[in-house]
Amino acid sequence: MLKLKHFAVSSFNENLAYIHKDCTAYHIDNVMTLTKVEIHGGVKPVYAFLQIVSDSSLLKPDELGLNTEAFKQINLPEGANISISIAPQAPSLISVKRKIAGNILTSSEYDAIIGDISARRYSNMDITSFLVASGSFMTTSEVLALTEAMVGEDVIRWDNEEIVVDHHCFGGVPGNKTDIIITAIVAAYGLPMPKTASRSLTSCAGVADTFSVLANVDIDETKLKKLIKENRGAIVDYNSLPIATANKIISEVERSIGLTQLQHLAASILAIKLAAGITHLVIDIPAGPSARVKTTTEAMRIRKLLEYIGDMLSLGVDVHITDGREPIGNGIGAVLEARDVMKVLRNKEDAPEDLREKSLYLAGHILEFDPQLRGGQGYFAAREILNSGRALEAMNKIIYAQGKAPQPQLGNLTRDIVATQSGVVESINNERINKIGVLAGASQYPGAGLDLFKKVGDKVEQGETLYRIYSVNSTDFAFANSVVDGNTGYEISSKGSF
Amino acid sequence: MLKLKHFAVSSFNENLAYIHKDCTAYHIDNVMTLTKVEIHGGVKPVYAFLQIVSDSSLLKPDELGLNTEAFKQINLPEGANISISIAPQAPSLISVKRKIAGNILTSSEYDAIIGDISARRYSNMDITSFLVASGSFMTTSEVLALTEAMVGEDVIRWDNEEIVVDHHCFGGVPGNKTDIIITAIVAAYGLPMPKTASRSLTSCAGVADTFSVLANVDIDETKLKKLIKENRGAIVDYNSLPIATANKIISEVERSIGLTQLQHLAASILAIKLAAGITHLVIDIPAGPSARVKTTTEAMRIRKLLEYIGDMLSLGVDVHITDGREPIGNGIGAVLEARDVMKVLRNKEDAPEDLREKSLYLAGHILEFDPQLRGGQGYFAAREILNSGRALEAMNKIIYAQGKAPQPQLGNLTRDIVATQSGVVESINNERINKIGVLAGASQYPGAGLDLFKKVGDKVEQGETLYRIYSVNSTDFAFANSVVDGNTGYEISSKGSF
Repeated sequence: MLKLKHFAVSSFNENLAYIHKDCTAYHIDNVMTLTKVEIHGGVKPVYAFLQIVSDSSLLKPDELGLNTEAFKQINLPEGANISISIAPQAPSLISVKRKIAGNILTSSEYDAIIGDISARRYSNMDITSFLVASGSFMTTSEVLALTEAMVGEDVIRWDNEEIVVDHHCFGGVPGNKTDIIITAIVAAYGLPMPKTASRSLTSCAGVADTFSVLANVDIDETKLKKLIKENRGAIVDYNSLPIATANKIISEVERSIGLTQLQHLAASILAIKLAAGITHLVIDIPAGPSARVKTTTEAMRIRKLLEYIGDMLSLGVDVHITDGREPIGNGIGAVLEARDVMKVLRNKEDAPEDLREKSLYLAGHILEFDPQLRGGQGYFAAREILNSGRALEAMNKIIYAQGKAPQPQLGNLTRDIVATQSGVVESINNERINKIGVLAGASQYPGAGLDLFKKVGDKVEQGETLYRIYSVNSTDFAFANSVVDGNTGYEISSKGSF
Repeated sequence: MLKLKHFAVSSFNENLAYIHKDCTAYHIDNVMTLTKVEIHGGVKPVYAFLQIVSDSSLLKPDELGLNTEAFKQINLPEGANISISIAPQAPSLISVKRKIAGNILTSSEYDAIIGDISARRYSNMDITSFLVASGSFMTTSEVLALTEAMVGEDVIRWDNEEIVVDHHCFGGVPGNKTDIIITAIVAAYGLPMPKTASRSLTSCAGVADTFSVLANVDIDETKLKKLIKENRGAIVDYNSLPIATANKIISEVERSIGLTQLQHLAASILAIKLAAGITHLVIDIPAGPSARVKTTTEAMRIRKLLEYIGDMLSLGVDVHITDGREPIGNGIGAVLEARDVMKVLRNKEDAPEDLREKSLYLAGHILEFDPQLRGGQGYFAAREILNSGRALEAMNKIIYAQGKAPQPQLGNLTRDIVATQSGVVESINNERINKIGVLAGASQYPGAGLDLFKKVGDKVEQGETLYRIYSVNSTDFAFANSVVDGNTGYEISSKGSF
C-alpha cells in the first residue's frame, strides 16, 4: 500500500504515476522501460505510465504520485491508501497490430479500441500507431464503425427541440470564421444552434480560439442548455462538455504529431456533433490546390462519405463544396479574425465581402432545415437578419450570456510584407500563409497572426504592403521572418492590370 | 532566464522540461498542448517536452526543471542560468508525412530523420509515426539507407584486428542463448568477438538479460577494448556503448508499442554491428510457423536483404536459416537460460542437445571466417574446443574479467503444467510459450520463466509435467495462470507412441 499524492504536474492528456526508486511497497529495480500500471483504490482502476523519482524532496518512498490528469480521474483525497499492479496490455492493441498489417477491422474491434482509448489504456504512442495505421486506408464501413464508436454513451439530449442545428467547416483555409456569424444569424432566426467548436489543431486559430477572444467558451452542459433555451445560440469549446472523450484524447495526439487524415476528420466531426445531440448539420468543404482538400473530386468523395455516415446514424447532413483557393476575410489569427467577424456583424463598410457572402450562403442552408421556410428562401432570410442588425443583437446577447472576455491585444512586433513587383495577385497559398501565421505564434497567442491587405485579383504596386505579420514574442517573430523571406505565399503576375 | 534544477524523474528515454505555471520568465497560460522546447545554456540546445507544475514545493516559479534524461544531456550544474524557446518542428518530420502518404524516401531523408531522432527532436509519438509508416513498406534501397543512417558517426575502431566477428539471432524462438556458448568457443579459438547484446524487446529474455545473470554487461568502450585484447571475447549490453544512439531511442519505442517489423530489425541489427566495428557476422534466422519468421520463403527474402546490405556496407554477412519450430533448450527466462548455457559449457550429461548442436553449428561458421581454417572444418574445431573444456575456461575468464554477477534466485512461485492426455508432443507454439513466460514476469525478473521438461517428439503420460512456470511476484503469477489454462502452447497427439 502506498499513500496517494497529487504530483501537481500537467502532462497534456497522458496519465503519469510517480514512484520513488526506493519505494517501500514495490521493487522498482526491474522497471527498465515505460511501464503501464493500474492504480487501485478508487471506484475504477486508473491507468497510468510509471515515472521513477530519485529525489525524496519531490516524493517520499511510501507515496505514489499522480499527475493532475490521473489525480482528477482517481477522485480520491491525498493520503488515501492505494495499490498498483502492472497493467495487462489493452486487449484491443491486437486489433491495432491487425490494422498495421493491413486488415479491415470489424465494428466491435473499433468499439474496443475507442473504449480502451477512453479509459486511457493506450499510451500516446499506442494512439499514434492506431492513427498512422488506420490513416493509410479505411473502408467506408470502417469509418462508420469508428464514428459510431466515438459517439460513445454520453450524448446530450435536447428534449424540447425537434431540430438542433450546427455547422462545421473542414478547414484548411486560413481565416475560417464563418461559424460565429452563422451562429448569430441562426440564433436570431430562432433555430437552436449549440455550436461545438474546437481549438486549433494545425491551423492559426480554431473557432474556439477566435470566439474566446470575444467570450468565455468553457461552458458545461447545464449552462449550455440554459443558454440555448434563452438565446438559441452558443459557441462552446467542446472540450468543456462531457462528450466524445476518446476523440479529445485522439485530437491531442493528432495535434502533437501534426497529422489530420481526412477519414479520421470525418469520423471526428460527425461523432462530436452526434454526441452533442445535433440533428441537422451543414458541412463546408473548401477545395483548392493549397487547401486541406485539394480537388473537387476528393471533396466529392468526402461528401459522399459524410452523407453515407449521416444517413446511417440518422444525422441530417448537408455538405457544401466551396471555393478554397485563398484565405477567407483579411485577418488570420484569433484577434484579427474576431475583428473581421464583428465588422461583418456590424455591417461595416470595410467588412470582408467574401466572409460575409460565405456566411450568408451557409447560414441560409441551415435556416432551410426549418420545415416552415420555403426552399430557396434561406439565403434571403439570413441576409435580412444580418442587414437589419438582428444578427449583431443576437451575438451581443450570446457574448453577454457566455461572459464577455477581456479582449487580448494584437502583438506589437509587426512587419509589413511588400510586393517586389507590380501586377495582379495571381494566387495566395493557404498552406504557406498558415505556416507563416503558425510560426508567428498564432496557434499559441491570440494576438499573433497575419492581416491580409490584398486578395486574389487585387492590383498591387511594387513596394505596396501585401500583408502584415503580428507576433507577441520575439522568437516567434524571428521564426516567421526567417521563413517568409523565402516565400511570401503570394504570387504576383506581372502581366499588368486588365 | 530561469535557474536549472534537476527534477529527478526518470521518464524512459523522453526528455521532459518542467516549468511553473506562474513562471517568472515566460507566460505559460498559452501552452495548452504538448509543446517541444529548446533549452539554451549548454554547449548544444537540448530538446524537451514541457510539463506544467502547479505546486511550488516541487518547482519554484524561477526554475526550469529537467528530468534525469534531459539533465544529463545539458551537462550543466543545478542553478545555472538557462533560457527556453519553442522548438521549431524537426524539419525531417515532413519526410515522415511523406512516408505516411506512401512515398519512397531518399537516403538523405533517412539521414535527416535519424539525425533528428538522435538529437531527441522527435517525441515518442513522432518516432511511432515513423515506425508504423515505414513499417508498412520499405524498398531495399530504403532499408539500406536506414541502416547507413543508423550506423552514424560513432564507430568503434579495432585498429590491430583484421577480422572482428559477431553473431546475431533474429529471434522469435524462446530460449535463444546460443550467443553465449558461441562467444566462449570463438574466444577460445582466438578470434575477437565483442558480442553486442541487447535487452529483451518482446521476448522473455535478451542475450544481455541472460548474460547479466552470470556477469556484468555494462561495459564501456575502453573496457571492451581491454577485454577483447586480453580474452578475445566479451558480451556487453550495447546500450553501455556510445554507438547507434537513434537505434536505442527507437528500440525503447518499439518495446513500448510491442512492434518489431522485420525490415527495421534487419537495419537495426546491421547498424549496431557496423557501429561496433564488426567485419564478419553470422546471422541465424529461425523459421517456423510460430517463430518471428514464419516460412523459409520469408526467411530467404530477409537473408537476401541482409546479404545485400552487408555487401553494400562492406560487412561480411553469413546468414543461416535454422529450424524455428520449437524453443531451443529447456529454460526460458534469464536464470533458466543461463543454467542451460553453463550445462552445455560444462559438458553435462543433461545439457540440452539441441542448444549444444545449434551453438556448434553457428560457432563453426564463425570460425570459418578465419582464412587459416580449411573450409568445412569449423564445426569440428568448435566441437573440439567445447569438448575439451577450453570453451568453459574461456567463459570463466570472460565472466571474471567482466565482473561476476550476484546470481539472482529463481522465482519461488511455481506451477507445473501437466499433460491432459497421454501421447507424443506434436508441437510447441513459440509465441504462446513466449507470452506465458512474459506474463509470468520473465521480461522483468531474471528469476521468472518456464522450464520445459518435454520437447517435440517426446512421449508423455497423462498427468506428467510438460513444463514448470516460475514467477517472482504474485500478480505476474496470476496473469500467467489465467492465460495458460486456456492454451498451454503444447499439442499432444493421442496417436500413441511409435
